[in-house]
Amino acid sequence: MLQNDLILRAAKGEKTERTPVWLMRQAGRVLPEYREVRAKMGGFKELVKTPEFAAEVTIQPVDILGVDAAIIFSDILVIPEAMGLDYQMVESRGPWFEKTIQSLEDVDKLRIANGVDDLHYVCEAIRLTKQGLANRVPLIGFAGAPWTILAYMVEGSGSKTFSKAKRFLYTQPEAAHALLEKIAQSTINYLRAQIGAGADMIQLFDSWAGILSPEQYKTFALPYIAKITDAIYTHVPVTVFAKDAHFIRKELGALTSCHTVGLDWTMDARESRALIGEHKTLQGNADPCLLYADFKTIEHGVAEMLNAFGPHKHIANLGHGLYPDLNKDNVRCFVDAVKNHTW
Amino acid sequence: MLQNDLILRAAKGEKTERTPVWLMRQAGRVLPEYREVRAKMGGFKELVKTPEFAAEVTIQPVDILGVDAAIIFSDILVIPEAMGLDYQMVESRGPWFEKTIQSLEDVDKLRIANGVDDLHYVCEAIRLTKQGLANRVPLIGFAGAPWTILAYMVEGSGSKTFSKAKRFLYTQPEAAHALLEKIAQSTINYLRAQIGAGADMIQLFDSWAGILSPEQYKTFALPYIAKITDAIYTHVPVTVFAKDAHFIRKELGALTSCHTVGLDWTMDARESRALIGEHKTLQGNADPCLLYADFKTIEHGVAEMLNAFGPHKHIANLGHGLYPDLNKDNVRCFVDAVKNHTW
Repeated sequence: MLQNDLILRAAKGEKTERTPVWLMRQAGRVLPEYREVRAKMGGFKELVKTPEFAAEVTIQPVDILGVDAAIIFSDILVIPEAMGLDYQMVESRGPWFEKTIQSLEDVDKLRIANGVDDLHYVCEAIRLTKQGLANRVPLIGFAGAPWTILAYMVEGSGSKTFSKAKRFLYTQPEAAHALLEKIAQSTINYLRAQIGAGADMIQLFDSWAGILSPEQYKTFALPYIAKITDAIYTHVPVTVFAKDAHFIRKELGALTSCHTVGLDWTMDARESRALIGEHKTLQGNADPCLLYADFKTIEHGVAEMLNAFGPHKHIANLGHGLYPDLNKDNVRCFVDAVKNHTW
Repeated sequence: MLQNDLILRAAKGEKTERTPVWLMRQAGRVLPEYREVRAKMGGFKELVKTPEFAAEVTIQPVDILGVDAAIIFSDILVIPEAMGLDYQMVESRGPWFEKTIQSLEDVDKLRIANGVDDLHYVCEAIRLTKQGLANRVPLIGFAGAPWTILAYMVEGSGSKTFSKAKRFLYTQPEAAHALLEKIAQSTINYLRAQIGAGADMIQLFDSWAGILSPEQYKTFALPYIAKITDAIYTHVPVTVFAKDAHFIRKELGALTSCHTVGLDWTMDARESRALIGEHKTLQGNADPCLLYADFKTIEHGVAEMLNAFGPHKHIANLGHGLYPDLNKDNVRCFVDAVKNHTW
């Protein structure tokens, strides 16, 4: 049914004619066409909550960049909001929560999100996107991993150290587990709703994975990721991207409900393969800053990356989202270089 | 001559009666006594540049926390300033450079710092500290590693991604190498002056090591670290702390002019020992946020850390600097737990 299902086949470990490619934050400010739509809206959250516009910007990179998948335009913080903790997206400063979670009593007041009702606008955006894509490429749904969501709910904003969120783990471990459980249940509901609306695969983003110690990660992060992936992996392929968490690659390799492990650019391809094992697909992992370079340097970097990962069980991507000041032509050069690579 | 030379002996790989301990940022806002001195001064830079006060706050943690070494109170950005690129320390926002380095022409205009003349105030602070310490414990001198210094000189301030600095590496590699060479030469002069003034050991801080890819790190960071350590290691023990650069541990293990490798809390002790080899001393690596916990949890965390590293070739520390809002009593608990550990 899909005209291009390279990514789905790669995620399932099947051999593919060429390495599929998409880019984190491909629907975003790097595209002038996105900025035009964005300018029509009052703010980032309004765009997220307006399905027809969210669908439009989701499809743009498929047309403009030629990527092998779309990823629904949304935000990981729709989950705290659906659980009863509202946030604002402050221009050029990031998310900000008026109320934060500081105790077990605060956790008890939160509700478990019902994906279909509380996050109907995301499901509607997925349905519209699927119509617009008309089976050209698969659509990726996503959510934040529970630790990253907790980090924002406790810290109340972005942070270099997330020391308030980490203090919460050290000083109130029971409240932390209660919160993580509620987030995980909400996320399962949410992702099932996304799959029901048409998402063809799912990625969990653990953006702040790398600030936990290996022990903390095994206690407060990985078990809740496993709950989520266990609940959905029989329906669609699942990717886990634990940014900067070099120390958890071996354990992610052993997580049977995860098909693909995302890698950042500090993680060597061959070392990661050895740690993760032969049975997983790996995703990544070019440095986004490579795309500031000239075309020749980008093409050379892409060839090195592809040769390091090999021709199968690899989905080409960056090791982080596109930076907004990158040039669209350089991004396109990256995508073309992957697609034109000869082994 | 020194009454307590545990750290020096541990750094040289000798067996010690117990594991020595000090803390990054031990001279700082975590101590009320520091905040009192700081309040007398116009600003952070004034404190750095006033040797008698810099010496006073350097000695404070030896008296108050009971650590096994002092580290001279200063800033890694004294080097850019000594090379001709002035900076301001903006309260609660960090460093800010009015002019930044954007081209080879900018690099050519910089001078190579002469440690004894351009940084006489640091040398004077070291001499006063040595007098005040009266041989109780060793004094650690330090500098930033060249990549981290370049990052600030090009970016002009702190940053989540340092994408301008990394773009400089990708688009102007020759200018980057010229700048790194000038920084390395300046740093060698500076550290020789620190050693001449009385520093008993030296630590290089590569605070932004972890945002480079392994390849970029081997090209733009490690060779310049090696130049510096090669120039000083016959005089005093040298520690290299490449924060977040999990991928470079094996290469640091092979750097013969480095005695001690600093580890952050994401780096497992046993895995790091296997990567780095048996001949180096390891330093670290508790999560600073452990010190938010109650005493029992801190003591348990210390025991786990010490048992993981073993009784020799280990200098206990955190995996990053103390956070300013930590409680002094908790910090003291950490130090005492190391000193009272029984094997």
